[in-house]
Amino acid sequence: MARIALDAMGGDFAPAVPVAGAIEALAELPPSCDIALVGRTEEIQAELNRSGGPHDRLQIVEAPEIIEMAEKPLAAVRGKRKSSIRVGLELQKQGEADAFISAGNTGAVMAASTLFLGLHPGVERPAIAALFPTISKSVMVLDAGANIDCSPRELRGFAHIGSVYARDVLGRENPSVGLLNIGEEEEKGSQAVREAFELLRGEPGINFVGNVEGRDMVMGDLDVVVCDGFVGNVVLKFYESVARLFTDLLQREMDQKVLQSEAMGKVMHVLDYSTYGGAPLLGVRGVSVICHGRSPARAVKNAIHVALRSVESHLSQHIGVELAGGSA
Amino acid sequence: MARIALDAMGGDFAPAVPVAGAIEALAELPPSCDIALVGRTEEIQAELNRSGGPHDRLQIVEAPEIIEMAEKPLAAVRGKRKSSIRVGLELQKQGEADAFISAGNTGAVMAASTLFLGLHPGVERPAIAALFPTISKSVMVLDAGANIDCSPRELRGFAHIGSVYARDVLGRENPSVGLLNIGEEEEKGSQAVREAFELLRGEPGINFVGNVEGRDMVMGDLDVVVCDGFVGNVVLKFYESVARLFTDLLQREMDQKVLQSEAMGKVMHVLDYSTYGGAPLLGVRGVSVICHGRSPARAVKNAIHVALRSVESHLSQHIGVELAGGSA
Repeated sequence: MARIALDAMGGDFAPAVPVAGAIEALAELPPSCDIALVGRTEEIQAELNRSGGPHDRLQIVEAPEIIEMAEKPLAAVRGKRKSSIRVGLELQKQGEADAFISAGNTGAVMAASTLFLGLHPGVERPAIAALFPTISKSVMVLDAGANIDCSPRELRGFAHIGSVYARDVLGRENPSVGLLNIGEEEEKGSQAVREAFELLRGEPGINFVGNVEGRDMVMGDLDVVVCDGFVGNVVLKFYESVARLFTDLLQREMDQKVLQSEAMGKVMHVLDYSTYGGAPLLGVRGVSVICHGRSPARAVKNAIHVALRSVESHLSQHIGVELAGGSA
Repeated sequence: MARIALDAMGGDFAPAVPVAGAIEALAELPPSCDIALVGRTEEIQAELNRSGGPHDRLQIVEAPEIIEMAEKPLAAVRGKRKSSIRVGLELQKQGEADAFISAGNTGAVMAASTLFLGLHPGVERPAIAALFPTISKSVMVLDAGANIDCSPRELRGFAHIGSVYARDVLGRENPSVGLLNIGEEEEKGSQAVREAFELLRGEPGINFVGNVEGRDMVMGDLDVVVCDGFVGNVVLKFYESVARLFTDLLQREMDQKVLQSEAMGKVMHVLDYSTYGGAPLLGVRGVSVICHGRSPARAVKNAIHVALRSVESHLSQHIGVELAGGSA
């Protein structure tokens, strides 16, 4: 039995998209899983009515306030006690839900996840773990924006956390971990990255493959790439825009027949971030998944699958054990 | 009258590719421009013979030594006095050439350019300026790998240097400059980036448009993006690999007819880094252009055009004037 709390008011197309994503997910999820839609009951109910009426595994949990995208995260979380983000995470704190998903204000979800779920010992801030498409298996990049300046110890922590996630949720055996740098040689990079290299070399429990470069990230050979949140965030957003550039270029040059072909659909599917669901916030005591503000229903549905796998694999407990052993 | 010195021994396919690139360039360059091929005379001569014999605007300047890709830059430049990189840059120092181009060891070209050309006052290390393809005009990203940790003053310097290059060589009027960050708000980012934002806001002579994100880089609205060399290098190499990922994906899914169509050729042309020639080293007193080690002849040819435009527009002098005024 697992219960996923979904922020029905988060994202650019709320509540329509979260409600649609939840309904799509329920068609695929095991019967033991249900979903709590957190937000304004009337608005959610109206969406449910439009989408075919009530569903016995969808409940509504009332949360009348909304944290807007542009609000200051911490102030908004403190001030809006009845916001969908806060109510949704409090459900998990009280044991009434096992996971939380939101396409709302990322900073607010981070702040509220930290406040209400707490952090594993040794973690100062949660890391955002983004999945990047590659030619073969996806690669997990962390941190993708939560931690700007990272100490060597924090980077080592990301390697442990990312390895657990790759095993538990992505099903990778002995996941390979690269340290993002500007050259393969160990003397390359900033002071923090050079020291992280030293820490990671020979670190027990990590399959560390050494420094990797920007060009290695989408080649499909790696499971986890560790970097600070500044460069991770820049590359993540860059990747999204390059995929759009590529689509725009194809649409400008190719004819409709090619664009609408099944083959082109497969290409676009690989590049579409909504394929990969949300980005989990790792390091919290629990499960919290962030979706892109512009997520379509498919991305929300996939984020629900990610959250359920995180719950069922006992991801958070495993991260706690890994950090207790790894940072000794 | 301009004379371009070209490292005939630099890059993965030397001397064949540099020689072919020089011959291609001469067919397009004005008659007042000639090229000095720097390297092992016999090997260059053999290539020239294969390519149709001597050319009256191609001279050979003997340099028997080669700095290999994996050598330590400074030690190699100091030790190999007769290397093609060193001899080529000494030609410029002595006034016998106006520009230098190499697809060889980037660090060695940087070190030798600094030693033999010198730097403009206020510049501590030259910046590598990379041109990124976008849906419309290209955008210049600097620094792309020469300066790992950048002070706010260095980042401001990149804004000035990049603006001059965009005007002189890319022909942009009042070029727009963005500061790469993880959000548009001024309080975002690392300490150095936040301070750079303060310096750039209201800086005379710079059309500063504020913080930009990874997603803005290839949208085609910007002329110059300023960042430290760590993130710039990661994104540059990432971009190259994403272009390859696209190509691989298309080749896996689409049929040959589509792949070989004129339309697909146009898409690939935009994404092909060889379209953009080399990356100029900015901040040196002179003209020095770095090419990718795997550059084809077309990239070398385009780098020769870039070098000639840099010479004819008096780029280096303009950068000197800009820095003298801008850093006051």
